[in-house]
Amino acid sequence: MDIEQLSERILAGERRALARAITLIESSRADHRAQAAELLERLKGVGRHAIRIGLSGTPGVGKSTFIESFGSMLTGQGLRVAVLAVDPSSARSGGSILGDKTRMDRLSRDPNAFIRPSPSQSHLGGVARRSREAVALCEAAGFDVVLIETVGVGQSETVVAEMSDLFILLLAPAGGDELQGVKRGIMEMADIILVNKADGDLKAAATRTCADYAGALRLLRKRPQDPEGFPKAMTVSALEEDGLQRAWDEMQALVGWRREAGFFDGRRADQARYWFEQELRQALLAKLETPEAKAEMARLGEAVASGEATPAVAARQLLSGLGLEDG
Amino acid sequence: MDIEQLSERILAGERRALARAITLIESSRADHRAQAAELLERLKGVGRHAIRIGLSGTPGVGKSTFIESFGSMLTGQGLRVAVLAVDPSSARSGGSILGDKTRMDRLSRDPNAFIRPSPSQSHLGGVARRSREAVALCEAAGFDVVLIETVGVGQSETVVAEMSDLFILLLAPAGGDELQGVKRGIMEMADIILVNKADGDLKAAATRTCADYAGALRLLRKRPQDPEGFPKAMTVSALEEDGLQRAWDEMQALVGWRREAGFFDGRRADQARYWFEQELRQALLAKLETPEAKAEMARLGEAVASGEATPAVAARQLLSGLGLEDG
Repeated sequence: MDIEQLSERILAGERRALARAITLIESSRADHRAQAAELLERLKGVGRHAIRIGLSGTPGVGKSTFIESFGSMLTGQGLRVAVLAVDPSSARSGGSILGDKTRMDRLSRDPNAFIRPSPSQSHLGGVARRSREAVALCEAAGFDVVLIETVGVGQSETVVAEMSDLFILLLAPAGGDELQGVKRGIMEMADIILVNKADGDLKAAATRTCADYAGALRLLRKRPQDPEGFPKAMTVSALEEDGLQRAWDEMQALVGWRREAGFFDGRRADQARYWFEQELRQALLAKLETPEAKAEMARLGEAVASGEATPAVAARQLLSGLGLEDG
Repeated sequence: MDIEQLSERILAGERRALARAITLIESSRADHRAQAAELLERLKGVGRHAIRIGLSGTPGVGKSTFIESFGSMLTGQGLRVAVLAVDPSSARSGGSILGDKTRMDRLSRDPNAFIRPSPSQSHLGGVARRSREAVALCEAAGFDVVLIETVGVGQSETVVAEMSDLFILLLAPAGGDELQGVKRGIMEMADIILVNKADGDLKAAATRTCADYAGALRLLRKRPQDPEGFPKAMTVSALEEDGLQRAWDEMQALVGWRREAGFFDGRRADQARYWFEQELRQALLAKLETPEAKAEMARLGEAVASGEATPAVAARQLLSGLGLEDG
């Protein structure tokens, strides 16, 4: 593949080139990895003006409808919108989110939008790296907004928050008067909570749920990266396309404040350092994934299991056999 | 230190030698690590007849009182009992569990008991390795029961379950008629749930809570390693020393069944393989902890943060500088 040509076509904003490049970074073949690194190196620092929005929400909250409505509103205002998914479970479930573009029929046919499902890998670390690199490619391709979608499962929120400028939590109206089972850690990551389905029969419940969350957010400790009034909870109706402009105004206000206060660039720098360290760890641990290492691990694992060797001695022996002596 | 002599004194069951050996394995000094490895190598496979009991319970459930009463009952029957703690938070809190032996006054003066607080390290991986090695030392010193205590915080239960033959969850009577906020994952690890404080005013509440948990346990999928009737919930009163013998009978029955069915040795073998792999990962990642690696990480981290280098290229550069090239 001609990486120079591919890089120029991405810079020109060609969606087909972008799709091809993401396929390249998702490949685990060594030659593809080398080409991907070259491509990212060429494009580094380009197009750093996009807003990266992390979006989390469990199945059933109307995430696809929200992305469809919100994304179409943005493209209607002349903005270019990319949608990426981070879903480490998609390998097992056969693509639980964004696998079916028909759920975002309008947006997927929009020339100013680009939708990309989650790579089909079950290892969160691998999904994370590829998603982070895909975000960089979307920025280089000139997208103004990159939406990074995830389902509400375990650590994937943290991964998405670590590649986003803003983190949005999408919720459905609660049945009772209790807060939904949102983990405290996830709520603490949210910059804006959007209670969806504020329409029809559910409108009153959505308003009440939103007030509950607004109250819960006020109990959290104020974070330095937040201006007065943030984090905040708002109602929206993705179905009736109501409240979306107000939500976008708040997102822009928050980003504007953070840019001026230096938190925007500071957070991106912190994130870059974080991903560098993750990359290091993964590259080291990959040394245990070679066929040679795996065979040795199996052999020494049996010696440890039978009590012939201690874990510490067997580990030292394996690393020394791979030329990775301790110390 | 004379490791041969230390090892012989441990085999003779000397508590002072055991305490000294645990201090040795808790040290991070390279020469101490080498001596610790030699000691463990000498003692490997010795005294594998102990029952390792993992015990989890949040603060307030009466864990210290339970260990005091349960441990004293066992020593009263001629058994030798070691108590270890796994608490990754103790470094910060200044020893939140077992820091104060006076809470176990009777047991700490008992010649057939050995109590050891959690090592004061905040890194769960480090605490885990040292605790696992301490368990092996206690077994070599001829203890019949090794109680491994942990607080109900995050991943420490998983760590304790991975070094235990049995996992016991200690709970207090619930206030309402709802299950306490016990995470499903922790409940699924439990072999026996003990509802403590079944005495005085709380007796009725304890009985009801126990019935609630018994019902919840019946809803879990049957595990192959359980005979009929397990996992089970029971009430105890550590204060009045009531129900402790019954609990011990059930633990022995479960262990006996698992031994005969092959699950006991099978689980230990699985655990040994698991700890071997953990040891390998930690040894590899330790290569990033040297002063040289840290200085390079800081330098390249800044290049990544400013956008001059991509995480992937910087990571490759660092590993190559440390003689750990990729591939």
